Amino acid sequence: MRATQYEGNKTFTVVEREIEAPKEGEVRIKVAYVGVCGTDVHIYHGMMDKRVKMPETIGHEMSGIIDVVGAGVTGFSVGEKVVVRPLDDRLVQPSDKGFNHICAKLKFIGIDSPGAMQQYWNVPAFTLHKLKQETDLKLAALIEPLSVATHDVRMSGLVAGETAVVLGGGPIGLLVAMVAKEAGANVIVSEVNEKRIAKAKELGLNAVSPLKIDLVEYVREQTEGRLADVVFEVAGVQPALDVMCEVAGIRGRIVMVAIHGQKKEVDLFKFFWKELKLIGARVYEKEDYEKSIALITTNKLPFEDMITDVQPLSNIQKVFENIDNNPDGMKVLMDCTL
Amino acid sequence: MRATQYEGNKTFTVVEREIEAPKEGEVRIKVAYVGVCGTDVHIYHGMMDKRVKMPETIGHEMSGIIDVVGAGVTGFSVGEKVVVRPLDDRLVQPSDKGFNHICAKLKFIGIDSPGAMQQYWNVPAFTLHKLKQETDLKLAALIEPLSVATHDVRMSGLVAGETAVVLGGGPIGLLVAMVAKEAGANVIVSEVNEKRIAKAKELGLNAVSPLKIDLVEYVREQTEGRLADVVFEVAGVQPALDVMCEVAGIRGRIVMVAIHGQKKEVDLFKFFWKELKLIGARVYEKEDYEKSIALITTNKLPFEDMITDVQPLSNIQKVFENIDNNPDGMKVLMDCTL
Ligand SMILES: NC(=O)c1ccc[n+]([C@@H]2O[C@H](COP(=O)([O-])OP(=O)(O)OC[C@H]3O[C@@H](n4cnc5c(N)ncnc54)[C@H](O)[C@@H]3O)[C@@H](O)[C@H]2O)c1
Ligand SMILES: NC(=O)c1ccc[n+]([C@@H]2O[C@H](COP(=O)([O-])OP(=O)(O)OC[C@H]3O[C@@H](n4cnc5c(N)ncnc54)[C@H](O)[C@@H]3O)[C@@H](O)[C@H]2O)c1
Ligand SMILES: [Zn+2]
Ligand SMILES: [Zn+2]
Repeated sequence: MRATQYEGNKTFTVVEREIEAPKEGEVRIKVAYVGVCGTDVHIYHGMMDKRVKMPETIGHEMSGIIDVVGAGVTGFSVGEKVVVRPLDDRLVQPSDKGFNHICAKLKFIGIDSPGAMQQYWNVPAFTLHKLKQETDLKLAALIEPLSVATHDVRMSGLVAGETAVVLGGGPIGLLVAMVAKEAGANVIVSEVNEKRIAKAKELGLNAVSPLKIDLVEYVREQTEGRLADVVFEVAGVQPALDVMCEVAGIRGRIVMVAIHGQKKEVDLFKFFWKELKLIGARVYEKEDYEKSIALITTNKLPFEDMITDVQPLSNIQKVFENIDNNPDGMKVLMDCTL
Repeated sequence: MRATQYEGNKTFTVVEREIEAPKEGEVRIKVAYVGVCGTDVHIYHGMMDKRVKMPETIGHEMSGIIDVVGAGVTGFSVGEKVVVRPLDDRLVQPSDKGFNHICAKLKFIGIDSPGAMQQYWNVPAFTLHKLKQETDLKLAALIEPLSVATHDVRMSGLVAGETAVVLGGGPIGLLVAMVAKEAGANVIVSEVNEKRIAKAKELGLNAVSPLKIDLVEYVREQTEGRLADVVFEVAGVQPALDVMCEVAGIRGRIVMVAIHGQKKEVDLFKFFWKELKLIGARVYEKEDYEKSIALITTNKLPFEDMITDVQPLSNIQKVFENIDNNPDGMKVLMDCTL
């Protein structure tokens, strides 16, 4: 079979490898599509070389079909369409209080252990979610990032009729915006990249540039002074942190989706003054996957427009180079049959 | 009657003034005791001279007896013991979403309008909470700051059996700790001032100095690795902001009680990683006052030990000078009959 490997130094290789039998408790998947995540790009840039052992097959956004069911696995059959929730929580401890998806010793499959950028992939059966036979496998490769969005929206406690401001219109921000809109919110996306603003509009979203308008005044007008009920910080930059406390109304909830590697300045006075809430959100739980699977299967939202390129797996090096050269693109998939 | 006035420049005067009749909708209170709040000390230091018009009678922590009931006021009678919830929310707007206690145009009585440091005080009837005839009026002067604490604990969602870490053992921090303990939490107070640590211990609290022990390791040991379920930031300093994200366990809730005048550095990565929540909390709502009144009336907690000095109102200048010279003291009351 064909497999890819991150070798360090901005290099992927494509290798021929024996197809391995699944171990006890595992299932072998014939991978259909694998998406490229911002984290994969970080790995390609060498930013996670301490964590990723090399050479390593990476990738965690995927869809596929069960190829072999390992010993001791029940409830799954060959030929079923599945996606993997890439969280290995086998080292969970009582001190994790049952929050397995963020347990202290969590291993992220595709970063801490081999990932999906290969034709056949063995994974523990407990990571699987079944799809319907009619589910489109190309769209299904969006289920992992979409589950970040369904998790974020659930954590926010958003209810229909509320106003949500999404700071950052990258892949995650736009998925959050689509899910929030589907939940009945009045959604405003704030994004600085004009191409991404255009993409957001193509998806039917209301998107504005905070460089061109006063975002806070705009949201104030749109809400008769209430300002945002929910803010999603999905940009990861200081200007977003500054505006999030301004654009949130009284008792506004701010969901921290972005990953801030350094300590950053926050206007804690506004947290006190307006009784704001900041809600940290990381990956997803089972129910978020189920919600995403339902959304993808019914295909009510313009998910197809999120996919800006599909390339053969064998082109992996070119795929990552293109992402670097074209920061306007949205979600790039690789077809693992090619 | 005797009244006091803040004149600016660290100066209070004691003046004789006519006792005024209450306006329509108002009640006249014969003030019994008035407590000195950190905010009053800020005013004395001239830090709020832009907001407080001078000369002004300040003070908002009090207890008293109804002296005259103004026109149009029903449900109150002369001789009843009362406390004032000093929030004038008459300018509430729909954009405040019903959160009247933090409405955008809130006026704080005793800062934005005349306060309780006088013998007779006219207030709108809607600010009153009735006490029982058996309620001790000296303890009742603690109801306002205690309501900050009951509000904070309620906002935290604390449940019995959880571990709460209180950062800062000043008057507010110790009241928060007492309320959290009464709610069934395992409470750890972190305080740097040895006199205040001793005071916390006198109140039956577990108090430690983060300068002497590793607070995070201590809490880890006390909780079998779970760390804090709830953290109250009541110190208002950068080291407390740094430790709050460390000492909170998975899905820990951090209540921001302290008022941070400037933007401060926060470890947002930890919010993402552990799915922490930051909950801004400001003053109190009606139900927090009712909870505090019940606690004070039953007098189950060592509230008396919180009161470190009682002085005649006529000594006001000396009272504020003493607070400056003795930062170890806790709550100072003034007796308004003297
Ligand atoms: N919480 C989680 O589990 C989780 C999962 C996946 C990704 N993430 C994080 O979510 C964030 C977004 O991910 P992504 O893949 O969409 O990243 P991205 O970098 O593609 O998107 C960020 C977007 O923010 C925009 N932006 C920059 N400055 C802005 C400003 N001042 N105002 C508005 N927008 C601005 C950028 O133009 C970009 O389009 C990243 O920080 C990522 O690490 C978190
Ligand atoms: N949210 C509200 O509505 C509300 C109401 C009243 C007061 N407050 C705020 O609450 C805070 C506390 O009020 P207070 O009157 O108790 O103030 P305070 O200054 O008396 O208490 C703060 C305590 O923190 C201690 N401290 C300093 N550094 C510390 C550290 N590194 N670790 C642990 N403790 C440390 C100090 O020694 C002091 O005892 C203030 O910021 C005040 O403005 C908020
Ligand atoms: Zn991802
Ligand atoms: Zn006060």
